[in-house]
Amino acid sequence: MKQFRSIAEFNAALRDLPGPDRHAIASARARQAQLTKPAGSLGRLEEIAIFLAGWQGRERPEIARARAAIFAGNHGVTVHGISAFPSEVTVQMVRNFQAGGAAINALATAAGLELHVEALDLDQPTSDFTAAPAMSEAECLSALSRGAAAVDPGLDLLAVGEMGIGNSTVAAALCARSLGGSAAHWTGPGTGVDDAGIARKIAVIEKALAFHANAPMTPFETLRRVGGREIVAIAGAIIAARHAGIPVVLDGFISCSAIAPVAAAFPAITEHCIAGHRSAEPGHIRLLDRLCLRPLLDLDMRLGEGSGAAVAVTVIRSALAAHNGMATFAEAGVSGA
Amino acid sequence: MKQFRSIAEFNAALRDLPGPDRHAIASARARQAQLTKPAGSLGRLEEIAIFLAGWQGRERPEIARARAAIFAGNHGVTVHGISAFPSEVTVQMVRNFQAGGAAINALATAAGLELHVEALDLDQPTSDFTAAPAMSEAECLSALSRGAAAVDPGLDLLAVGEMGIGNSTVAAALCARSLGGSAAHWTGPGTGVDDAGIARKIAVIEKALAFHANAPMTPFETLRRVGGREIVAIAGAIIAARHAGIPVVLDGFISCSAIAPVAAAFPAITEHCIAGHRSAEPGHIRLLDRLCLRPLLDLDMRLGEGSGAAVAVTVIRSALAAHNGMATFAEAGVSGA
Repeated sequence: MKQFRSIAEFNAALRDLPGPDRHAIASARARQAQLTKPAGSLGRLEEIAIFLAGWQGRERPEIARARAAIFAGNHGVTVHGISAFPSEVTVQMVRNFQAGGAAINALATAAGLELHVEALDLDQPTSDFTAAPAMSEAECLSALSRGAAAVDPGLDLLAVGEMGIGNSTVAAALCARSLGGSAAHWTGPGTGVDDAGIARKIAVIEKALAFHANAPMTPFETLRRVGGREIVAIAGAIIAARHAGIPVVLDGFISCSAIAPVAAAFPAITEHCIAGHRSAEPGHIRLLDRLCLRPLLDLDMRLGEGSGAAVAVTVIRSALAAHNGMATFAEAGVSGA
Repeated sequence: MKQFRSIAEFNAALRDLPGPDRHAIASARARQAQLTKPAGSLGRLEEIAIFLAGWQGRERPEIARARAAIFAGNHGVTVHGISAFPSEVTVQMVRNFQAGGAAINALATAAGLELHVEALDLDQPTSDFTAAPAMSEAECLSALSRGAAAVDPGLDLLAVGEMGIGNSTVAAALCARSLGGSAAHWTGPGTGVDDAGIARKIAVIEKALAFHANAPMTPFETLRRVGGREIVAIAGAIIAARHAGIPVVLDGFISCSAIAPVAAAFPAITEHCIAGHRSAEPGHIRLLDRLCLRPLLDLDMRLGEGSGAAVAVTVIRSALAAHNGMATFAEAGVSGA
């Protein structure tokens, strides 16, 4: 599986993003046109089946083995009082994932996803990025590689998610530095801070943007300077999945923010990604628009953990059930339009 | 199970609609507040779990047995060239349902739904409602009762769907007569007619509205005069489900049009219903707004057959998986906000 042993290796992976199998896409599209329904009447279910055909490289894509990979990290920036929950909750929730009691446990089971939980050095929060890079180069490369290592090459589909107290502030900083727009444009209530909390988040992000303003505007430097270990790991997983031909289901604002720095330089990074849902965090739909991704679901969810991605997988399974299981007009003896 | 042996019996069923179990709703809401997530962060998944608790009358609702009930009918109004497909397709598609080759077969299996297909006198289309009532009183009562008979009292959830060449015109006529608005307001391309086809549909509906203008504006008379057997059966099923305490997942424009005449007089009829999705047929979102229902999914689907409702059931299952499977803060040893 992909590793990121150097910045050069990371950059090379981004310059060399493989595309989908055009032949499989054409075959899947032709199959859809023959199924017993008015053309196009299954809407996005048809699009999803054709999308998966392209990335899996077969007319009839399948999800025999899929994984929700959930990454957890802690953030030095929480010293500024930016979350409704204390940092201890990150490790407590990881234990909850391991014990099977969290939302993602239930939702992954319902969606037929194996759950892979990767806790990244929770006892070593990143540095407070208002006054230093969040990570050293070695730490950032390590987080990228741990993300990549969670991508088993035998997977048919990968859903990504995260847990990390304070990380909606990190996500907003990543978006603002990568895509422009003010700190306020990208900042919302996260797990539920009040207006004063949002003001603190904005002030922290503005300070960080100013501190790092003169550093290089590369994907790696932005991830390293204003990212966090769990978010960087998601970026590594998404890039590794691309090189392994595995389509990815994104979760909410924080998961999506992982590719904002990459997409700013290499917009094609999103091509193997499905936006699982639109979260209630206001920055998320703005980010999806910038990534040219249309969310599959809109259920007012704002939990993270890959929860929205997991629910989306149930819809994706329905799309494949129809694509693979339906009869053609000829097989069923039904008159066409 | 409910029967409709007379118009009086039908009206009595509507005047006596049972409500949900308020105690179960309160218990389910209290449970949600204790689960290991920020309050409200599962959005509509939380609402769905609480909704099902109310109608199933238990803090932890379950879907052990659920059914997609699909009704098929033929329409005399098709003589006016209002569909992209010939009427023979209705019986051909019923055979496809029975052989397992249609979209609803694949989607019902994916959603864990048993499939119940009810073909209503396909060899006897309703009368052309531009010049006569579509059905006699006896025919309408029979269709209502056949819908009710499809509601097994052992079900935990019912999804409804339909198949009937020409029935998007019937649905638009039901909406216009029940809720007001012009024929054009409620008319769209259905399975895919062109602009000339839409103009034919509008003309047919305008003629029907004029022909029946002086008849009583009761739910029964509107269903009988401008309805169709499969749509009337859906109305019967929805009412029967209400009296059996079974929540209902609605499908697209045509399924929802079945309760438009009822809702105009008894708005509470929608309270045990979930709008499974917003279809691509333009009248559907207008109808959902009038029914005060917010669709769960928006996937550009426009097939009917209960296909959108079936996909919605996968999301509903996820909602219950989280509600029933998650640990509480106390159980998991996680700090609250």
